[in-house]
Amino acid sequence: MSTALHTDHYELTMLQAALQSGAAYRRTVFEVFARHLPGGRRYGVVAGTGRVLDEIERFRFGDEELTFLREHQVVDEPTLAYLADYRFSGNIYGYREGDLYFPASPIMVVEGTFAEAVVLETIILSILNHDCAIASAASRMSNAAGARPLIEMGSRRTHESAAVAAARAAYIAGFNSTSNLMAGHLYGIPTAGTAAHAFTLLHDSEQEAFEAQIASLGPETTLLVDTYDVAEAVRTAVELAGPKLGAVRIDSGDLAAAAQEVREQLDALGAHHTRILVTSDLDEYAIAALAAAPVDAYGVGTSLVTGSGVPTAALVYKLVARDRATGRLEAVAKRSVGKPSRGGRKYAYRMMDAAGRATTELILTGAHESPENGVPLLHELVREGVVVGREPLSAARERHAAAVATLPQEALHLGRGYAAVPTEFS
Amino acid sequence: MSTALHTDHYELTMLQAALQSGAAYRRTVFEVFARHLPGGRRYGVVAGTGRVLDEIERFRFGDEELTFLREHQVVDEPTLAYLADYRFSGNIYGYREGDLYFPASPIMVVEGTFAEAVVLETIILSILNHDCAIASAASRMSNAAGARPLIEMGSRRTHESAAVAAARAAYIAGFNSTSNLMAGHLYGIPTAGTAAHAFTLLHDSEQEAFEAQIASLGPETTLLVDTYDVAEAVRTAVELAGPKLGAVRIDSGDLAAAAQEVREQLDALGAHHTRILVTSDLDEYAIAALAAAPVDAYGVGTSLVTGSGVPTAALVYKLVARDRATGRLEAVAKRSVGKPSRGGRKYAYRMMDAAGRATTELILTGAHESPENGVPLLHELVREGVVVGREPLSAARERHAAAVATLPQEALHLGRGYAAVPTEFS
Repeated sequence: MSTALHTDHYELTMLQAALQSGAAYRRTVFEVFARHLPGGRRYGVVAGTGRVLDEIERFRFGDEELTFLREHQVVDEPTLAYLADYRFSGNIYGYREGDLYFPASPIMVVEGTFAEAVVLETIILSILNHDCAIASAASRMSNAAGARPLIEMGSRRTHESAAVAAARAAYIAGFNSTSNLMAGHLYGIPTAGTAAHAFTLLHDSEQEAFEAQIASLGPETTLLVDTYDVAEAVRTAVELAGPKLGAVRIDSGDLAAAAQEVREQLDALGAHHTRILVTSDLDEYAIAALAAAPVDAYGVGTSLVTGSGVPTAALVYKLVARDRATGRLEAVAKRSVGKPSRGGRKYAYRMMDAAGRATTELILTGAHESPENGVPLLHELVREGVVVGREPLSAARERHAAAVATLPQEALHLGRGYAAVPTEFS
Repeated sequence: MSTALHTDHYELTMLQAALQSGAAYRRTVFEVFARHLPGGRRYGVVAGTGRVLDEIERFRFGDEELTFLREHQVVDEPTLAYLADYRFSGNIYGYREGDLYFPASPIMVVEGTFAEAVVLETIILSILNHDCAIASAASRMSNAAGARPLIEMGSRRTHESAAVAAARAAYIAGFNSTSNLMAGHLYGIPTAGTAAHAFTLLHDSEQEAFEAQIASLGPETTLLVDTYDVAEAVRTAVELAGPKLGAVRIDSGDLAAAAQEVREQLDALGAHHTRILVTSDLDEYAIAALAAAPVDAYGVGTSLVTGSGVPTAALVYKLVARDRATGRLEAVAKRSVGKPSRGGRKYAYRMMDAAGRATTELILTGAHESPENGVPLLHELVREGVVVGREPLSAARERHAAAVATLPQEALHLGRGYAAVPTEFS
């Protein structure tokens, strides 16, 4: 199905009025940026760019969409005629997926007529606000987890389609796998999972449940050991699976203390290679608090898919330039109290010091020379309506890890604070 | 596309192990409930039930899904064969959409074999956790707004598909319209919107922009007046549209003070019937604080689609009964520290006093007589695999308004607290 109706009503009424006044065909530049990083975060993570490219290609008004718009009198016939032929034919530049952003970073720049650019506002912001929020939270969790793997398992705590996008964003930001099969199917993300408490409760005893699971999934499986009594379950698990038991999962109680006890018990039983997976309302703070505990992997659900307190990224899509009768692009900006915008087409560079650390997010307006030691951040994504910036998800994941490594140390601090890299305008 | 892969990996590995052990065909009862109401909320709102019914009907493993599962070795061949024929053939009972719920309310009860019931966990929880969270927040906003209409306009702040579900949940809980065209198309919710700041900035002057909008959308339109200077914009707006101007929208600044000034100015200009719409990071608290201001309608975005601090409803899906060799259903419950479950098939009644106020959420286990003055809360939704509980969205919306009217007064208090109606087990 087309995504063209994933659009706010007012985009189309603006289009109608602009078609009638003639302003619809003015060239424009729209820019996606965040005025601030919500939640006192030190940096944001760009995610969703690849999904934006997919959706722009599918953004078409077919019979079904046009019939709805006509029957509900959303717009008039000339506007319907325009929409029937709608194809985005402009250019889009953007920060690459997995890269970092800071306040005012122009993470996406859309150039086209007003008509073709304005109608993309809602779909672009929906995708980027969601995916960047999830990736930004996931990155903090990845930092906190260090080398220990993270499994994304929050599907049940968010909208069914948002869950798939969340798994994708988490993978970019360092998660290793997801429970979500659709994310595996659509994006090739490794999927993982073995059993829930229901499986144990289904059988007449925990022993029967473990026997059934091992018989079917092999001794390398992960057994869930907290349905009744953890110590008894661990004993049963090793008895049945032997020292080749892959892992045990603990999903309740004080996870640090429980992991310590279970590790000692496993070692005493000779199951030195059996790993311990912990789950249960983990977030970046809980993960950090478990750094000294004998935990081998973390499963994260609710806090990941809800952005760990920041479920949306505060990104906006603003008109920053348009041409007028002269045919020259002219900067425009609103002056709304507390929410002013900064006019003009932007260019962005990340300034690096000799040691390869990011020092400044430099934002230039209009024609300029590339600054020395500045890494250009805007890349071509769409050229005259054709997607040219597609890349494999693995590239975004690798880029993210490399980008985090350029941050100053305080950027990894979990407490609230200011952006780790200051934004400067020139 | 089928929703069958909107499923956690472990549902299918459990299925595989249970098919091999034979336990897969045991009759089971799963129950959806919340251990608590997050965020100190006084009540929860049931939403998403209709979407669950739609998705269960579409929950099929076709060639595409089976090929993915086979190629990625998620499950073995006998399990794939089972999934190829998968049709839910059991019964589902639930609270009706728009109704209220409290801690432990069994808002959905799924009866079927373990195999057919367990694989529905993720899709059912995704839908209900999201939609109930949004509806619960929306209901508080509706209470705060009183008779003034609420427009849902948060699409750009959440995942593009979650946005459609959010508009639906908000409508159930009392919102009057949405900006989301897909929600209008799929669910018949009234859509609304006129123009953004970009439209004003596009034109060479605010006057030209207003002229263009009025020429196309008529004087009854809503003009956005805070792009530059509010007083000047209001003067221009009335000058161009005359006293028939439909409304002005204020999107920044101190909304109470701005609304007061604009009302006085409109009245002085003779535009007594021109309404004032306010938007800009409104939530239930901000709406309540504007009760005395001359505001005619509220537009709510971010806080609505993110559940106003509670983006997910903490609902879980637990096995509460299953049969064993005897063929008799037996209650089962886990004993996990801090997260115990309560076994047995539940029945729920809302106990009412003589004045029609809800006094208790009464939850009974197993066979029982219907209590006097108790309104039964569980209704048949699916009978032997066939959906029987579908209803128009308007029914849910009306039910919600009626249900809120039965709550004790303190339920409408916006501060954190305990559930407004206590849950009792018998």
